[in-house]
Amino acid sequence: MKRFMAVVSYDGSDFYGYQIQKDLRTVQGTLENALKQIFKQETTVVAAGRTDTGVHAYGQVVAFNCPIDIDSESMKNALNANLPSDVYVRKVLPVASNFHPRFQAKRRIYHYYIHNSPQTNIFIRKYAWWFPYEIDISRMRQAALFLEGEHDFTSFKKREAQDNRSNVRTIYRIRIIRLRSSIILTRIEGISFLRRMVRNIVGTLIKVGVGEWEPKRVKEILLKKDRSEAAATAPPHGLYLYSVEF
Amino acid sequence: MKRFMAVVSYDGSDFYGYQIQKDLRTVQGTLENALKQIFKQETTVVAAGRTDTGVHAYGQVVAFNCPIDIDSESMKNALNANLPSDVYVRKVLPVASNFHPRFQAKRRIYHYYIHNSPQTNIFIRKYAWWFPYEIDISRMRQAALFLEGEHDFTSFKKREAQDNRSNVRTIYRIRIIRLRSSIILTRIEGISFLRRMVRNIVGTLIKVGVGEWEPKRVKEILLKKDRSEAAATAPPHGLYLYSVEF
Repeated sequence: MKRFMAVVSYDGSDFYGYQIQKDLRTVQGTLENALKQIFKQETTVVAAGRTDTGVHAYGQVVAFNCPIDIDSESMKNALNANLPSDVYVRKVLPVASNFHPRFQAKRRIYHYYIHNSPQTNIFIRKYAWWFPYEIDISRMRQAALFLEGEHDFTSFKKREAQDNRSNVRTIYRIRIIRLRSSIILTRIEGISFLRRMVRNIVGTLIKVGVGEWEPKRVKEILLKKDRSEAAATAPPHGLYLYSVEF
Repeated sequence: MKRFMAVVSYDGSDFYGYQIQKDLRTVQGTLENALKQIFKQETTVVAAGRTDTGVHAYGQVVAFNCPIDIDSESMKNALNANLPSDVYVRKVLPVASNFHPRFQAKRRIYHYYIHNSPQTNIFIRKYAWWFPYEIDISRMRQAALFLEGEHDFTSFKKREAQDNRSNVRTIYRIRIIRLRSSIILTRIEGISFLRRMVRNIVGTLIKVGVGEWEPKRVKEILLKKDRSEAAATAPPHGLYLYSVEF
C-alpha cells in the first residue's frame, strides 16, 4: 500500500496534546478523523514527536498508509479541506512502506519563545511565555554550553516519567537569540528528547538569565541526576516542535 | 466624582464587538463587569470607537466615573486583576469630569494587517487577513492618495447604515508598508470614520493591488456615492483600533 509523510503545523492552544485520548480533542485524533473522511475507513497516524497539551508545532512530521489512488498534492489539499483552522498540512510526500517518523528521525529542533517585556501583549499570549523581568541572554548562553553534547538528562525529565530506560540524550546545539528586542528565542537541536526536557531546560536557563543562579550550576544539576535540582518547568505555550530531519 | 480614562487592548476574536448587547460577550460588558467587581455598583463605560465583532484594539480609549478613593496605578492593577486574558488595560489616567473619548477624540488611527503569502500561517490566522495572491503595494499607494482629504465616503459605508447624517469625513493620511516581506500594513488616520469604512477601503485597495482595478477607479467610486461601487468588505480579524489622540 502507498504511504505518505506529512509536515504539519498546529496551534496547540485548544488541543489536549498530540497523542490520541478518548473523548478529548487531540491532534492525532483530529488528523485520523480527517483521513477517515477522505478514505472512508480507519487509519492510524504516527508522528515524530508527541507534544504535550498546549505545545505547538510548526513542522511536526507524521506518516500514514493510503488505501486510495491519490497524488501528494491532492492528498495535501484533501487533508486541509477536512482539517479545522488550527491544523495545517504544509507538505505531503510519498515515502517507503516501512517509513516511521519517530524511529527514523535524525534530528529534532524545538523553538521556545519568551516575550520579555514589562507589559504583556495579549495578541501573543498563547504563542510565547510572557516574562516581565530582565534577562541577560549572555548568561543563558554560558549555561547552555554545559548542556550541549551527550549527557544523562535525568534532572531535566518529567518527575513522574520513571522507568528503566536510559536518560542519556545528545543535544547538538542550543542557540539563544534576541529577536525584535522583546522576543527571546531558544532553539534546541538534538536527536531525541525526554518528556518535558526542553521546557525544563528553558526554565533552568531563565533562572540563570535573571541572575538567580550561576551558569556553572547547570553542570552541577546535570551531575546530580535529580529532577528536584532543576528549575520549574517553563509553560507549554512558548514551545514549538519546529522541524524534524531524517 | 473622580473620572478616569483607560487605554485598552483587546483580542476581538471571542467578542461580539465592543458595544454592550444582552446575553452576548462584548468588550463594554466585560469592562463594566470588572468595574462592578471593584466598585460594588453599576458603572457605564464610554469609548472612543465602537469596534465590530472580531475587530481588535491595541489602543481603544474608554472613560468612566470612579466612586471610590483609588489612584491611577491601583485602578489599572485592579482592572487587570478582574479582566479576562483577552483584555488588557495598558494605562489609566485621571481626566476632567466632562471628558468623553468619543466626542473629544481629535484623531483615530486604524491598522489593517494582511498576511500576503501563498501558504497560510495558522499562528496569525486570527490576527491578519491571509491573502495568497500577489499584491503590488505601489498601486495601492496610488489609489490611497485619492482617499486622503475631505470627501463624502457614502460608497465606503456599511450598506444598512442609512440615515440622514453627513457621510463627509476627513482622512489625514493612508500609509501602506510591507513589514517582514509577508505582512502588509495599511495605516489609516482620520478624525472619525463611518461604519465599516476602514474595511471597505482596504477591500477596495486590494482590488487595485492585485491589478483588477486601476488606481483612478477609487476616485470614481468616491464620486458615485454608492456602496455597490466599492469592493467587498475586508474581514474583521485584520483590523485594529490602534490609537486615539485628543
